[in-house]
Amino acid sequence: MPYPHPVLLLCAALLMPACTAPRGGELRNTLISVSDNVRVDHWRTDQQRSGVGGAPWSVTKRTLHGGRQEGVDLIEVDNGVLRFTVIPTRGMSIGQVVAGDVRLGWDSPVREVVHPRHVDLQDHGGLGWLTGFNEWLTRCGVAFAGHPGEDNERLLTLHGRIGNIPASEVEVVIDTAPPHRIRVRGRVDEQMFKFADFELWTEVSTVPGSDALRIEDRLVNRSSYKREYQVIYHTNFGPPLLEAGARFVAPADMIAPFDAYAAKDLDSWRGYLGPTRDYGEQVYCVTPQDDGSGRTLVMLRNAAADRGVAIRYRTDTLPKFTLWKNTDTAEEGYVTGLEPGTGFPYNRSVERTAGRVPTLEPGAEVTFALDYRVLRDAATVEATRVEIEKIQGYRGTKVSRTPPRN
Amino acid sequence: MPYPHPVLLLCAALLMPACTAPRGGELRNTLISVSDNVRVDHWRTDQQRSGVGGAPWSVTKRTLHGGRQEGVDLIEVDNGVLRFTVIPTRGMSIGQVVAGDVRLGWDSPVREVVHPRHVDLQDHGGLGWLTGFNEWLTRCGVAFAGHPGEDNERLLTLHGRIGNIPASEVEVVIDTAPPHRIRVRGRVDEQMFKFADFELWTEVSTVPGSDALRIEDRLVNRSSYKREYQVIYHTNFGPPLLEAGARFVAPADMIAPFDAYAAKDLDSWRGYLGPTRDYGEQVYCVTPQDDGSGRTLVMLRNAAADRGVAIRYRTDTLPKFTLWKNTDTAEEGYVTGLEPGTGFPYNRSVERTAGRVPTLEPGAEVTFALDYRVLRDAATVEATRVEIEKIQGYRGTKVSRTPPRN
Amino acid sequence: MPYPHPVLLLCAALLMPACTAPRGGELRNTLISVSDNVRVDHWRTDQQRSGVGGAPWSVTKRTLHGGRQEGVDLIEVDNGVLRFTVIPTRGMSIGQVVAGDVRLGWDSPVREVVHPRHVDLQDHGGLGWLTGFNEWLTRCGVAFAGHPGEDNERLLTLHGRIGNIPASEVEVVIDTAPPHRIRVRGRVDEQMFKFADFELWTEVSTVPGSDALRIEDRLVNRSSYKREYQVIYHTNFGPPLLEAGARFVAPADMIAPFDAYAAKDLDSWRGYLGPTRDYGEQVYCVTPQDDGSGRTLVMLRNAAADRGVAIRYRTDTLPKFTLWKNTDTAEEGYVTGLEPGTGFPYNRSVERTAGRVPTLEPGAEVTFALDYRVLRDAATVEATRVEIEKIQGYRGTKVSRTPPRN
Repeated sequence: MPYPHPVLLLCAALLMPACTAPRGGELRNTLISVSDNVRVDHWRTDQQRSGVGGAPWSVTKRTLHGGRQEGVDLIEVDNGVLRFTVIPTRGMSIGQVVAGDVRLGWDSPVREVVHPRHVDLQDHGGLGWLTGFNEWLTRCGVAFAGHPGEDNERLLTLHGRIGNIPASEVEVVIDTAPPHRIRVRGRVDEQMFKFADFELWTEVSTVPGSDALRIEDRLVNRSSYKREYQVIYHTNFGPPLLEAGARFVAPADMIAPFDAYAAKDLDSWRGYLGPTRDYGEQVYCVTPQDDGSGRTLVMLRNAAADRGVAIRYRTDTLPKFTLWKNTDTAEEGYVTGLEPGTGFPYNRSVERTAGRVPTLEPGAEVTFALDYRVLRDAATVEATRVEIEKIQGYRGTKVSRTPPRN
Repeated sequence: MPYPHPVLLLCAALLMPACTAPRGGELRNTLISVSDNVRVDHWRTDQQRSGVGGAPWSVTKRTLHGGRQEGVDLIEVDNGVLRFTVIPTRGMSIGQVVAGDVRLGWDSPVREVVHPRHVDLQDHGGLGWLTGFNEWLTRCGVAFAGHPGEDNERLLTLHGRIGNIPASEVEVVIDTAPPHRIRVRGRVDEQMFKFADFELWTEVSTVPGSDALRIEDRLVNRSSYKREYQVIYHTNFGPPLLEAGARFVAPADMIAPFDAYAAKDLDSWRGYLGPTRDYGEQVYCVTPQDDGSGRTLVMLRNAAADRGVAIRYRTDTLPKFTLWKNTDTAEEGYVTGLEPGTGFPYNRSVERTAGRVPTLEPGAEVTFALDYRVLRDAATVEATRVEIEKIQGYRGTKVSRTPPRN
Repeated sequence: MPYPHPVLLLCAALLMPACTAPRGGELRNTLISVSDNVRVDHWRTDQQRSGVGGAPWSVTKRTLHGGRQEGVDLIEVDNGVLRFTVIPTRGMSIGQVVAGDVRLGWDSPVREVVHPRHVDLQDHGGLGWLTGFNEWLTRCGVAFAGHPGEDNERLLTLHGRIGNIPASEVEVVIDTAPPHRIRVRGRVDEQMFKFADFELWTEVSTVPGSDALRIEDRLVNRSSYKREYQVIYHTNFGPPLLEAGARFVAPADMIAPFDAYAAKDLDSWRGYLGPTRDYGEQVYCVTPQDDGSGRTLVMLRNAAADRGVAIRYRTDTLPKFTLWKNTDTAEEGYVTGLEPGTGFPYNRSVERTAGRVPTLEPGAEVTFALDYRVLRDAATVEATRVEIEKIQGYRGTKVSRTPPRN
């Protein structure tokens, strides 16, 4: 029998501590692989089993059941301080991050981890993406992102396909040398004959005992033609960070409202209301300042300024930033999105005209790097504010009263 | 290992009679649960194993395989007289009901229990629902139902989403006290960020030895905004009840044709032809009379008036009724639909204008209750006719020659 | 327990050599069956286990895992000379054929065997079929095929549905008598209430030790109405057969360009370039000559004329032939399609006007028969050329400079 039987593999997985294979200073575990024809249903490793690291940590792979989440793969990482879930079935999105009393994430009316087979992106005039939207971090893209609408006479659906494509290769890698970084890697392919051949290599990683996680993604254009791409890191925050009096802090070179409704409240764009009936959403288009070395730092902090989240990221590949303020009622999803991106979330046809759609040469790649840190006390929040202020320096913020679209 | 392994669960399910947990006068068995991360592949309970009830009955859960029905969950209930199937994967639709020589249901050219992942509601201009349509009872709704078409510039697909959403929580409950009602419950969620947050709690139940089944559904608007909803109970009957000379009997306050083609044969709207080439479908819009307490009774009976089905239901929440006469050839699906609903099956934009789209306040709920009874002899058919006549009383039926749309 | 438990079935499949049931001179093995509620996860038979045949051969069923191919069924046939894969989950398409140093097939940028649940045919204006397209042979059809576009105000998506519908009944049949033909049969249903009720019975077969495989398909219209249908056998070839200097050889009665771009290079329509940047595709519409008995023969051969593939097929049911020349870069999918069909790949509305959409009477069926042979030396290529020349005879080829559409 040339192919190992999946049930036997399953049983083996139950009996053995972990299918880890040491390889050049790392423990590497393949959980899903098209190349090896493998999908592990259930698996776990931790500090004790692996013998790696001094502080307790664990990584668990399991499978979700019932409703629209039947068959969804889930990876849970606990670094001793932070816990978060990675969802291979949904393009390596990240469900929630919890660190003590701080939670990164939000409460969407979509309460299941929806399998892409139950998401019809064409639904409701191209808004079907909203029937699966509830993650802390979901990537929009990569052939297109942003609002639905026709581009070259073809309907582009909201925020593209990548968040609803299951990962083809998924592995968990633990560095055997300190600080024993835990890496969850997944390759998500967006392929369409004659139109797209993108490989998105995602990595989310964390160091045991730390309050931070790092995204390092690499997008490769495998086509032999130059291709446009769009990427938005749609990271979403509800309570406890989001509340009346919470504040967005960023070194802004330029700020503009997304539309007339956002223009109305432009002067208070950095502040937040509590849950507000009929608020809907206000969106602001930000061009951040960088620190001179192509990096920037932004923060969302709570009203008391003693909890927050900081995003330190590279602006060379993610030059634009969208602040999505959706401080509607709790039931509707009280949430704000901090969204570094290649552009703003207009339809690709609009973004192209505005010169905000980058391209990749044949075989070329681009990397995206973002460090998210949970800020757990007033001192860290204040230190972050000071650092942001330093990046802003004496440069003012240009304010446009009109949306950055033609 | 914090999560029970599904294979172990499976084995346990094989060895144990049933995972029943007595709880306040009922045996409760969870078959599918997003909350508990459970989906039972195969399970059975019956009068003997459970020790509940005097007459034989059984409930079996199994999984379908092959073609477009791979992975579809199916629950089969046998109350000793009636047998029927509930399909959690297809929004808790009911496949067929069989009681002796009477069958409720029909023969669709769609001959598999199609998994929603193989139904593309957008197909063929929003008619994709028809690629999975073959049940005896399927619910249309709930954010929208009726014919495809644009409403607020967004395409609403035929009969909505709810019939193609898998249930998130499914349980079988048996009352330990007589008459030992058997209940199959399932929660189906229609959720779309910014657009819909509906929970539909369905229950179909039957008493061992009886010739009836009961639908008791509860629709909850979990949004904090008032929301429109539409629900149609699309119950469909072919032979043996439907035949040349079969008749629809109902206390009608008002009757109107759905369109010009139905208007043509308005005078014979209560009667049926045998399978008729090129008949297509004729649809009639009925406003039933109620009995003064918000309930009504309608019947479909065969030509000999010795077999039939009666639907006793609440008109306060289901004020309109659609009679769908599709007496085309047997191969095409010789079938009639008896369809209590919140309105008629025009597109929501039409129904709204006509004032037939109800709304639910934030957090509010509405219940629907329908009792279906198989009529197995001439006496019961006659008694039902008499009761219907009594409801009609001296009130005449207003006949409109024009469709109830603008 | 009335239903055998799938896990037990699975274990049985592991212990037993094969669930073969001798029946009238053939070994018959059901791998997938809606009727029997069976889907075999893993299975294998071969010459030794079955005791049938003198030369080694094998048939293996396995299941793919990971990414967009999770759960895809695959059947691998090795006849000792030829190896090929049949994909029940994708409408019985054939993945690749390998015979020594000749490969029938191509390298699509779509590199997984994509489960239909991850193909949205509506995507990108009806071009979603291209997100799963990578097989050697895929059938287009059957209610419609060809380019996307509206017909009767409904969007028909590229190349129809049949290539993305999983087979309902799949069996492997081995003739116990010489030459011990190995047959993989699958029934694929395209069903839509009121619109389509087609059964497509597919069979691909091969004789152990031979260099040929045979397609024998039967399309049945189960509707009681006459129905239009369209079928295209989209067989696709990249290297090593396709290369600069490769040539298409066929007895052509008439030839026309598909569009203006193809018209430009009409004079070299039989020849091929190597991988060519910005080539895109040129498509030619061919009406083959037949041999007087309703059969024809066409060939693709390499530059050296010592490797090739011949298709011998019936033109009575497949009167038209499309030559798709997509000699773009290797990364984009350097490929040519040899496509016998009922018509050309214009939208059905165009084909209807041109009189190229056939119909099937109620209950009627049509069969398609194609023999593909791998040509492995110069002598066989030359013999095929001579035979094609003989079919052409003294009849010239009419050349139209304008596309065969209004």
